[in-house]
Amino acid sequence: MEPALLTVDWGTTSVRLTAVAADGTVLGSTHSHEGILTVGQEPSAYTLTLDRLAGSWAATRPAVIACGMVGSAKGWREAPYLPTPVDLLDGAPLTEVAGPWGPVHLVPGVCTHGGVMRGEETQLLGLVLAGHRDGVVALPGTHTKWALLTDGSLTGFHTAMTGELFALLTTHGTLAQVVGSQAPEAPDWPAFEMGVHHGLAGAGLGAAALAFGVRARALLEQVPPERVREELSGVLIGSEIAGALHWLGDQPETVSVVASAGLTDRYRRALTLAGVRAEPAPEDVTSSALVHLARQAGLIEGAH
Amino acid sequence: MEPALLTVDWGTTSVRLTAVAADGTVLGSTHSHEGILTVGQEPSAYTLTLDRLAGSWAATRPAVIACGMVGSAKGWREAPYLPTPVDLLDGAPLTEVAGPWGPVHLVPGVCTHGGVMRGEETQLLGLVLAGHRDGVVALPGTHTKWALLTDGSLTGFHTAMTGELFALLTTHGTLAQVVGSQAPEAPDWPAFEMGVHHGLAGAGLGAAALAFGVRARALLEQVPPERVREELSGVLIGSEIAGALHWLGDQPETVSVVASAGLTDRYRRALTLAGVRAEPAPEDVTSSALVHLARQAGLIEGAH
Repeated sequence: MEPALLTVDWGTTSVRLTAVAADGTVLGSTHSHEGILTVGQEPSAYTLTLDRLAGSWAATRPAVIACGMVGSAKGWREAPYLPTPVDLLDGAPLTEVAGPWGPVHLVPGVCTHGGVMRGEETQLLGLVLAGHRDGVVALPGTHTKWALLTDGSLTGFHTAMTGELFALLTTHGTLAQVVGSQAPEAPDWPAFEMGVHHGLAGAGLGAAALAFGVRARALLEQVPPERVREELSGVLIGSEIAGALHWLGDQPETVSVVASAGLTDRYRRALTLAGVRAEPAPEDVTSSALVHLARQAGLIEGAH
Repeated sequence: MEPALLTVDWGTTSVRLTAVAADGTVLGSTHSHEGILTVGQEPSAYTLTLDRLAGSWAATRPAVIACGMVGSAKGWREAPYLPTPVDLLDGAPLTEVAGPWGPVHLVPGVCTHGGVMRGEETQLLGLVLAGHRDGVVALPGTHTKWALLTDGSLTGFHTAMTGELFALLTTHGTLAQVVGSQAPEAPDWPAFEMGVHHGLAGAGLGAAALAFGVRARALLEQVPPERVREELSGVLIGSEIAGALHWLGDQPETVSVVASAGLTDRYRRALTLAGVRAEPAPEDVTSSALVHLARQAGLIEGAH
């Protein structure tokens, strides 16, 4: 089969292309670290990168749809933000840019007063398409999102830059001096869960105090660096969960988690300590959502 | 008059030497950016740096007493931590190292379960000597301390790495992209106070969420970079104050603030928004405290 559509999940630090046949069959996928931080802000750089990554898939001149930071002011072209509530199944106005063999269609982001997302709205649509139309969804990452779905609509969300904070604290500054520079090969769950406990119980003290507490214990009790790293991860995730529950205003029974297997496991354990059941999302939610949006926009044929 | 004592406040990023006569008269002071990060961990580097900074003051071979990170494991020699409660007026066991013309006496730090300080205990002694024997003291900086004084004893403290977090967020990462790299010449108080308001009111959401909110507003409302910088400063200080009040368990009427004039003004404004009166500390509390400790240890003569 030949590709009729390329779905592109183009984020800050990586990009994933998936080739899809007209009937929705996934033909293959390629991944690269050429995120928008690498590609920059020159439109021609996006054209060249896309052409190269597509390789022989470009021969049939497939339609192209892309979501994520590629549609930000720092990406290829700025696509608008849609204000919440957003009916995810209802399609989205796509922004066209000139690609290497035809237009590339950028998916809009979503904003609330005081919050922005780009890419997660497409993951959430994928979750809705998989039958999760209601409830709380956590999408952990550099900027973790906590989203509320109501009958397939995205009604609000909350962001915590936990992943970025962890990276900053373990790379630069005084905690980096006591934290192992490498993630351990296997997670140290007792250290992580002790951190989560501190993060949940001490959220009122603030993350700047909790992070210093990790450093102080490392100095006073001479904790090994890789254990300090795990404890810090737990403290920041625990503190994030406390903040998200505060935002929600009550404690959900279940939270769907959309993330890599490793990060899903981390959030599952932390949520369990907070008394919440975590439900892992199905794989490939982004690509299935982009296929849906492409069909709705008439970029490929087939049932909506 | 000739110096009988050099007091040395030797921190992470700077060092201040003050020459003091036998009767306590301050003869002069010198400041340098040769903190322990610059000098390193080789004892001979401390000897050479001290000799050079002392210059002609070394001629009378004055006694030397030093506090701060110079006494940490990353400094000249590790001096112990005294566990709280510490009667500050009661003197402290000094750790001797061989200096360029005689021993240098390092002041011990103080620890609680989960907290460490080095240098602030000496500032607190200076405050006690100035008559502030009781109450809550804020010592803003890279690692801001909130300390409890009870009849001249340090009974507990709380740390928030607010200054370090602000530096990390404005130098590296995604907030650095929307924050002005330079502090404005004059503070933008409305932007700062809006940030404090968000930090105090939204502390339950967590600092990682509040910091992202600053970024989102910058993107959505196209706030100028220097205003974003001030708002972030306010958000982090407001969130720190909320955490410190949570730690205290109640709201004090007054907090003494030991910091530079600029930082004192920032905390005074933020505390006022939290309904707390700020009282600036007298200047030179560190040097007066080191003179007191030197007298108690018999390094110079005079009344205790």
